[in-house]
Amino acid sequence: MRITVLAGGVGAARFLRGLRAAAPDADITVIGNTGDDFAPFGLHVSPDLDTVMYTLGGGISEEQGWGRDGESHAVLGELAAYGAGPGWFGLGDKDIATHILRTQLLAAGQPLSAVTRRLCERWQPGVTLLPMSDDPVRTHVTVELDGREQDLHFQEWWVRLHAAVPARRIEAVGAARARPAPGVLAAIGDADFVLFPPSNPVVSIGVILAVPGIADAVQAKTVVGVSPIIGGAPVRGMADACLTAIGVETSAIAVAAHYGSGLLDGWLVDDQDKDAVDAPELAGLAVRSRPLYMTSVATAAEIARAAVELALEVRR
Amino acid sequence: MRITVLAGGVGAARFLRGLRAAAPDADITVIGNTGDDFAPFGLHVSPDLDTVMYTLGGGISEEQGWGRDGESHAVLGELAAYGAGPGWFGLGDKDIATHILRTQLLAAGQPLSAVTRRLCERWQPGVTLLPMSDDPVRTHVTVELDGREQDLHFQEWWVRLHAAVPARRIEAVGAARARPAPGVLAAIGDADFVLFPPSNPVVSIGVILAVPGIADAVQAKTVVGVSPIIGGAPVRGMADACLTAIGVETSAIAVAAHYGSGLLDGWLVDDQDKDAVDAPELAGLAVRSRPLYMTSVATAAEIARAAVELALEVRR
Repeated sequence: MRITVLAGGVGAARFLRGLRAAAPDADITVIGNTGDDFAPFGLHVSPDLDTVMYTLGGGISEEQGWGRDGESHAVLGELAAYGAGPGWFGLGDKDIATHILRTQLLAAGQPLSAVTRRLCERWQPGVTLLPMSDDPVRTHVTVELDGREQDLHFQEWWVRLHAAVPARRIEAVGAARARPAPGVLAAIGDADFVLFPPSNPVVSIGVILAVPGIADAVQAKTVVGVSPIIGGAPVRGMADACLTAIGVETSAIAVAAHYGSGLLDGWLVDDQDKDAVDAPELAGLAVRSRPLYMTSVATAAEIARAAVELALEVRR
Repeated sequence: MRITVLAGGVGAARFLRGLRAAAPDADITVIGNTGDDFAPFGLHVSPDLDTVMYTLGGGISEEQGWGRDGESHAVLGELAAYGAGPGWFGLGDKDIATHILRTQLLAAGQPLSAVTRRLCERWQPGVTLLPMSDDPVRTHVTVELDGREQDLHFQEWWVRLHAAVPARRIEAVGAARARPAPGVLAAIGDADFVLFPPSNPVVSIGVILAVPGIADAVQAKTVVGVSPIIGGAPVRGMADACLTAIGVETSAIAVAAHYGSGLLDGWLVDDQDKDAVDAPELAGLAVRSRPLYMTSVATAAEIARAAVELALEVRR
């Protein structure tokens, strides 16, 4: 069985850990969002790729959901002593080693996909992890701050401002001219079905789909998504702030309707959102409800199993 | 009093700490060797500048003589886990922060002299620290290894091979087209005298003097040197291997003769090398003997005081 998954960060990583357990023999390809990438201190950080890699490779900080386990913070402490910023982005020493190596390999001319493959040689995540593109795509958020409209890198809005300042616009800068990374379109085309884990529909899945060619390839396949919204609120993160920016209500129904029945074939919602099962907005979509909180690898595996079963059921 | 010092690493740094104590009111400019600079993991390391900066700024590892105090090694451990090299160069986490910031500022287009000034804003070394040049100069060592002649970066010969493989040639690649960094020639020209601390005459002082314009400027001044050789052996490091490569004997007399009385005006040797005081090879040079082991800041200050006194005595 070939499964391709479009992935953001923590929610996707935990779902994938469940999927790997639920479908141990499946050939899983993960297409990771790189719109959140940025370069504090000149080090290329790919937060979503790293979260997937560390989680599946057994190196994640389980408490945080991102970053490395057993971290120290000597480097960041020293950079602060130099008065070097940004001071609002947490980077542990072990994590920094990943970014140093990535930056070195990129500077040597390797594309991000090759660098990601190289990093995964160590982590052996048990999936093929591909960046959505080797070309730079950067999610920018336009806000009103200090009395004027400002264009911020996603991380500055998300991490520094905790997405508490309303986003007027969210744009994946560079997406229109980005090309899918080598292997991305083939992994979608060859897949038995495509899964959307409970990732941010706007800045994770939405940005991946903004790379020309990816949405068309996905649309041609059976697609099942897992709602990142439970009971009208994001399970994790601040997806509500992103949804509001694009005029979508923060509900399991509205997110599925946003993707649309042209793209989605199946949709898993939490039992709290049972009303989605028969919602007229989702006509033509196979909607199932079940517990969706991933409180452990076992519960994540049950959710992943339900997503796989739904995909096999609705497969066209 | 204006004093300008050409500096290598550990010996220079300890001498400078003594000089600062011996001449607290002096305006001291240090011109640091950058021929040893290299870029493990893509991070720009300036070993000699950092050793001076950390030592004078109170952040040095006193045991090692280089690197930071109270170091951890999480980053290097992780890079090793990725199989990334070089594995033979020790870099602590705190030290790496310096290199990350330097690399970031250089990549942003700042010259090394400006970056060094920025780093020194934190360390407040009490001297003006200038790289000899903003242009890249890299000391290369030609050796016979694995049955063929190989051209190695200085650090690979020095750190990985412990200078145990004889050097056939030592060359400061890029020196011929390098320009003195802003302020270097003025600091020499404005100085009351120039001091050579007990640094490596070949790969430290020699490389600085290889930058066009510096030797001429130094030659026009009163110059007093402190012998890095005591009793026929280098006090620290493997200067003997470097001297052999350029056909100079490892002795206090031979090193002074190598600099020549055209360049040097005074020369401090250890009491073990009293024969240098009246050596015919050093005719025209004021040679004094005294204890030269820098076992503490106090002994380093006494040596520095003797160097200053000799410079004032022989000043032309």
